[in-house]
Amino acid sequence: MNSLDYKFDFRDERNLSLVMDFYELTMSQCYFNSDHRDRIVTFDLFYRKNPDEGGYAVFAGLEEVIGYIQNLHFEDEDIAYLRSLHKFSEPFLNYLRHFIFTGDIYAIKEGTPVFPYEPLIRVKAKIIDAQLIETAMLLCINHQTLIATKARRIVKAAKGRAIMEFGARRAHNFDSANYGARAAYIGGVAGTATTYAGQKFGMPVLGTMAHSFVQSFDSEYEAFLAYAKTYPDSCTVLLDTYDTLNSGLINAIRVAKDYLEPNGYRMQGVRIDSGDMAYLSKKIRKALDEAGMQDCNIVVSNSLDEYLIKSLIDQGAQINSMGVGENLVCSKSAPVFGGVYKMSSVYENGEMIPKIKVSENVEKVTNPGFKDLYRIYDKESGKAIGDLMTLHGEVIDPKKDLTIYHQMNSWKNKTIPGGNYIVKDLLEPIFVEGQLVYDVPKLEEIRAYSEQEFQCMWDEILRFEYPQTYYVDLSKKLLDLKLKMLEDVKHG
Amino acid sequence: MNSLDYKFDFRDERNLSLVMDFYELTMSQCYFNSDHRDRIVTFDLFYRKNPDEGGYAVFAGLEEVIGYIQNLHFEDEDIAYLRSLHKFSEPFLNYLRHFIFTGDIYAIKEGTPVFPYEPLIRVKAKIIDAQLIETAMLLCINHQTLIATKARRIVKAAKGRAIMEFGARRAHNFDSANYGARAAYIGGVAGTATTYAGQKFGMPVLGTMAHSFVQSFDSEYEAFLAYAKTYPDSCTVLLDTYDTLNSGLINAIRVAKDYLEPNGYRMQGVRIDSGDMAYLSKKIRKALDEAGMQDCNIVVSNSLDEYLIKSLIDQGAQINSMGVGENLVCSKSAPVFGGVYKMSSVYENGEMIPKIKVSENVEKVTNPGFKDLYRIYDKESGKAIGDLMTLHGEVIDPKKDLTIYHQMNSWKNKTIPGGNYIVKDLLEPIFVEGQLVYDVPKLEEIRAYSEQEFQCMWDEILRFEYPQTYYVDLSKKLLDLKLKMLEDVKHG
Repeated sequence: MNSLDYKFDFRDERNLSLVMDFYELTMSQCYFNSDHRDRIVTFDLFYRKNPDEGGYAVFAGLEEVIGYIQNLHFEDEDIAYLRSLHKFSEPFLNYLRHFIFTGDIYAIKEGTPVFPYEPLIRVKAKIIDAQLIETAMLLCINHQTLIATKARRIVKAAKGRAIMEFGARRAHNFDSANYGARAAYIGGVAGTATTYAGQKFGMPVLGTMAHSFVQSFDSEYEAFLAYAKTYPDSCTVLLDTYDTLNSGLINAIRVAKDYLEPNGYRMQGVRIDSGDMAYLSKKIRKALDEAGMQDCNIVVSNSLDEYLIKSLIDQGAQINSMGVGENLVCSKSAPVFGGVYKMSSVYENGEMIPKIKVSENVEKVTNPGFKDLYRIYDKESGKAIGDLMTLHGEVIDPKKDLTIYHQMNSWKNKTIPGGNYIVKDLLEPIFVEGQLVYDVPKLEEIRAYSEQEFQCMWDEILRFEYPQTYYVDLSKKLLDLKLKMLEDVKHG
Repeated sequence: MNSLDYKFDFRDERNLSLVMDFYELTMSQCYFNSDHRDRIVTFDLFYRKNPDEGGYAVFAGLEEVIGYIQNLHFEDEDIAYLRSLHKFSEPFLNYLRHFIFTGDIYAIKEGTPVFPYEPLIRVKAKIIDAQLIETAMLLCINHQTLIATKARRIVKAAKGRAIMEFGARRAHNFDSANYGARAAYIGGVAGTATTYAGQKFGMPVLGTMAHSFVQSFDSEYEAFLAYAKTYPDSCTVLLDTYDTLNSGLINAIRVAKDYLEPNGYRMQGVRIDSGDMAYLSKKIRKALDEAGMQDCNIVVSNSLDEYLIKSLIDQGAQINSMGVGENLVCSKSAPVFGGVYKMSSVYENGEMIPKIKVSENVEKVTNPGFKDLYRIYDKESGKAIGDLMTLHGEVIDPKKDLTIYHQMNSWKNKTIPGGNYIVKDLLEPIFVEGQLVYDVPKLEEIRAYSEQEFQCMWDEILRFEYPQTYYVDLSKKLLDLKLKMLEDVKHG
């Protein structure tokens, strides 16, 4: 696929350029006024903690970032607004009016399992370019990575049963519903109830009826019958408007026997949205089976999350598929993904000067320098051993032994024998000198790639309770640089 | 202001019509095929539980709902997409192609303190019209009400200190950042860092510098000096890039003395973004005061929420204003506002037939019928006594005694003596027969109105810990109807 043909699909109709923290503009004017207006700098976008005390995240949101950066420009009305704030000079406003992003962006592919502290996106650009894209990039990645990760957890808990994303009404506004559905699909859900997401992203859409539908008819039987007549080959009815077992279930079976089966159709499914789902689903399964409706699916959808799903399955609940709402689309149990964007170096006369952010909190110290990122796989099992950050340009020869180092302590290291491992460069070129060079994959491809990459992860990394910490290690050269810089700060 | 002139300001550039749960379309086709295609029905949008175990919510999102409904239509590309799903007939697709909303919508004004179970929005429309707007209406109201409520709590905790909304980077995508900033402003924040929200909604924007700004200069002093030269009359510097007290504070004072004060300016503020804010702010205040910089503000911004703010103030922290990020824009501690949309009646031959949704859970039983909503104020104190739901058309004569009833138990009632109270109709006409009839207020007006309405609420309702439950009661007629319908369901 030609990326140039495709790019208009994901550029937003809106001009979202000004979705930037105001300090990006105030800082940029300072740079503009300074003698290092065109200084090249590098930034890493990374995060520090997996959501839900989990062992991983699922990287998502890159396509939206690409759309934002392609669209990034300041229209006359934007300039007029900024002028009205009486903070910006005419030369700077004129600079913005003609601004386009001219830097390099490398990123991990969407759908990749990712881990704390590794650069998910690496930017090398003029300082103003690098600064102006901070907020938009973070919010796309933070949102979609959060939801893709939650979806992956929920899909895992369902052990092969289909999960449907049903949360739009509780989303944090329109984009949260739409891009949340997209991210959930990357994380493995089977489809969404949000029609717009189906249209825009080409993912399956699903839905049947609400309680109000049943209430609007003179009887539950008439409501089910009307639905069956309109959708004889995909009829799923909602059982719990009045009384799940004593009314809904009975009317569902009646409509199957009175109308669907005589006309050569089958009742496709029944849905329950309240009550004890373990108990009810077993009762319903038994009644449906006794009525010769073994192929009728049971769908449940009441405040589900990964833990409740696991519990239902452990209890032997008879469930074929599940709709998940607010716990997925808002990631209710862990609603914030804390991606950050930190400067890693500045270039002076063509030389990379590494930068480090120190902090009282060890976990807030950054990894300095312009870096590369590799994933190391065990040759025999195909499983991922760990990820390795190096300074840019370090060469790994897979025929030789490879020693990887803990991010802070040189005595914590691990050597992988030469010939036993495979190395993959995780950072793909997305923009080079402002030009999109990336063949943006289709959503289906991202989803399939994600599934395949998760097959390379040990179960110990993926489990919910006390997962193993995946190695994200440093090369000797990078660790030495980091420790030296920390010493210099302390004594300087 | 003429609402027709204004409406284009808040209609979205996007065609968001298909942000609807797919079941709204499948149900609508059933209605279309049935003999009650044009039946008039009524729905209430309400919620059941205040966020954060609080005593209230702040209603917000109505303007966005208005924009959605004004824009609601199906373009050729939407119809083509729906056709591609092979679920919809050509007559129904043709009906959608020409669909416009033709119903009545009444709503509470944005900024109003609201309470569980009362109708925030009341819809009376043809059944298809009423159904198609469900998801979009809920997601706008659920999102903005959630954030306005959280903002109100945070602003209250700050006891007059300015709160700035700083959360865009952690928002659930672009709309969450932008409309979240708007909602936070309704809830009382002083401004936002999100430039787009400033432009679109006319709210104040604020921002200074990031750690990367300081790092990009050869020294902290040079960074502060560059900033002071560009913004001499609004210079706020960030102290904690290297060492708050031993470096940042010293350089801030140096720049004030070396550059700002000799040129007739003052250092406006210093900001700290890490460390112990109670301890640091006191040390900084003392040092600034000793340097004759009593007018230099201290701004803090590190994972603040209403509880941490309260604690800092209790500890005597010397803070003038605060930036709040993810805890506000994601409402991290309570990220879901559970607004629902339930059918309350259907009309048959011009007669209103009330509908009730029963449930095992008493708190999920709905209030039946087409209803009105009043707020009752004590005449002397001006404080709100409670809200009253009645059947539509019941008349309240404030000269007479008024007895209001608990939503489920007739023995729990309260009589307010005639002449002692004032009644306000809370539901304003927004759309009548599909036409916008509401003069949409400006954001500043909404914010001021909200502040004024909160002045009418007793402190016992507003406190964080174990707030009093505000009365949301029923008229005798409505309670009798409800209890009779519950009996009928039980025995029928």
